[in-house]
Amino acid sequence: MSSEKHRLICVGLGPGDPDLMSIRAHKLVSNANHIAYFRKKGRPGMARTIVEGIIKEDAIEYPMEYPVTTEIPFSDPEYERLLSDFYDDWADRLEKLTESSDVIALCEGDPFFYGSFIHLYVRLNERVKIEVVPGITGMSGCWTATSLPIAHGNDVLNVLMGTLSQEELTRHIRGSDAVVIMKTGRNLHKIRQSIEECDRMHDAWLIERGTMSGETVSRLSEVDMSACPYFAIVLLHGKGRRL
Amino acid sequence: MSSEKHRLICVGLGPGDPDLMSIRAHKLVSNANHIAYFRKKGRPGMARTIVEGIIKEDAIEYPMEYPVTTEIPFSDPEYERLLSDFYDDWADRLEKLTESSDVIALCEGDPFFYGSFIHLYVRLNERVKIEVVPGITGMSGCWTATSLPIAHGNDVLNVLMGTLSQEELTRHIRGSDAVVIMKTGRNLHKIRQSIEECDRMHDAWLIERGTMSGETVSRLSEVDMSACPYFAIVLLHGKGRRL
Repeated sequence: MSSEKHRLICVGLGPGDPDLMSIRAHKLVSNANHIAYFRKKGRPGMARTIVEGIIKEDAIEYPMEYPVTTEIPFSDPEYERLLSDFYDDWADRLEKLTESSDVIALCEGDPFFYGSFIHLYVRLNERVKIEVVPGITGMSGCWTATSLPIAHGNDVLNVLMGTLSQEELTRHIRGSDAVVIMKTGRNLHKIRQSIEECDRMHDAWLIERGTMSGETVSRLSEVDMSACPYFAIVLLHGKGRRL
Repeated sequence: MSSEKHRLICVGLGPGDPDLMSIRAHKLVSNANHIAYFRKKGRPGMARTIVEGIIKEDAIEYPMEYPVTTEIPFSDPEYERLLSDFYDDWADRLEKLTESSDVIALCEGDPFFYGSFIHLYVRLNERVKIEVVPGITGMSGCWTATSLPIAHGNDVLNVLMGTLSQEELTRHIRGSDAVVIMKTGRNLHKIRQSIEECDRMHDAWLIERGTMSGETVSRLSEVDMSACPYFAIVLLHGKGRRL
């Protein structure tokens, strides 16, 4: 066995439809012997679901199960500590694994674009040889599902998290032509109020499971506000502003 | 021959590396009989370059050659008129083609994200059955090339065109954590000045030909300002802002 370490390769899997995985991602995933991915306890996990039927039968899997759910507020210090220990622990385990083999980390969407993998990346970047394969973002899957261009011409596009304050959401929406809002869920009332303040409700769409089975595309004004999943995305399309 | 019209399928090809094309894009392109793509006169065109060696030998190609170059200012009315006629003409020709066959339109990056295809889409949407296959954006290719996450946590990400005014660029950069600036070229001096005003030069990168042969990743402070191509992208990475 070589004493030189192997690589940790984080593979962006795209928005959900396995056919939207890149050729390179497909090659890496179908040849992988060691595969790690995040998931909630008791759930298959979105990344693992995308590669179902693609990975080798004898591949060794490392499900990295979150110690807590998103139902605990981000601001709770206990949540922060638990999560930080969890990432520290998995960073150590993945580093150890790369001593004997390449390890493939699965990541839905594009790893460097708000991906959970970034928590491992910042811990391992100096310790392990890391490669990242970009993927089609979840938001691309969502705007393609609306059959409308998200931005063209000189449109200013803003990507916002629903966890921002009401004031921040309103200010950024007001200053933009096209808007993508992620992390919706329990933030949807706040998001909706900001969009109303900016008089953009007629433009607003909510997309769940873009490019996946069960995909829904709805006008935000017609959505059942009590049942929005965390991973649904709100979109306001740009108008193709010219100078 | 059926009287029902066939489809115009716009295929996002990703950032440049053919291996970063999606499985679906690869299938569609390698089976296509009629293939249209934009290019400048006398150039192979980026979209066509990406599919070199993938398309069938007997595929019929429709290079849609721009009547003018980007050297004529966007604000020139002659430019607007020429370009509009050009898109009208190709919309008519593609509609005619779909009477007898599916037509694949090639688009680098992601078609609905600032893609040239949008000019055809807005003309043909009501007249032809159109399908769009999303792709990895050029900006994803560029931030992956820097080996740094573009945004995480609660980062606000702004996508801006270098053609915006100095004031707009400065205002949007100041309000964002992560920034992507496209359409650089002759706008690079202005872009650089806005970044300096926001005290973000230490963060700023310029990426040319991300994921392609000849890729360069440079700190903006070290770039030769006289030779920036239009398609180079400026990036300011977010810091992973937590609430």
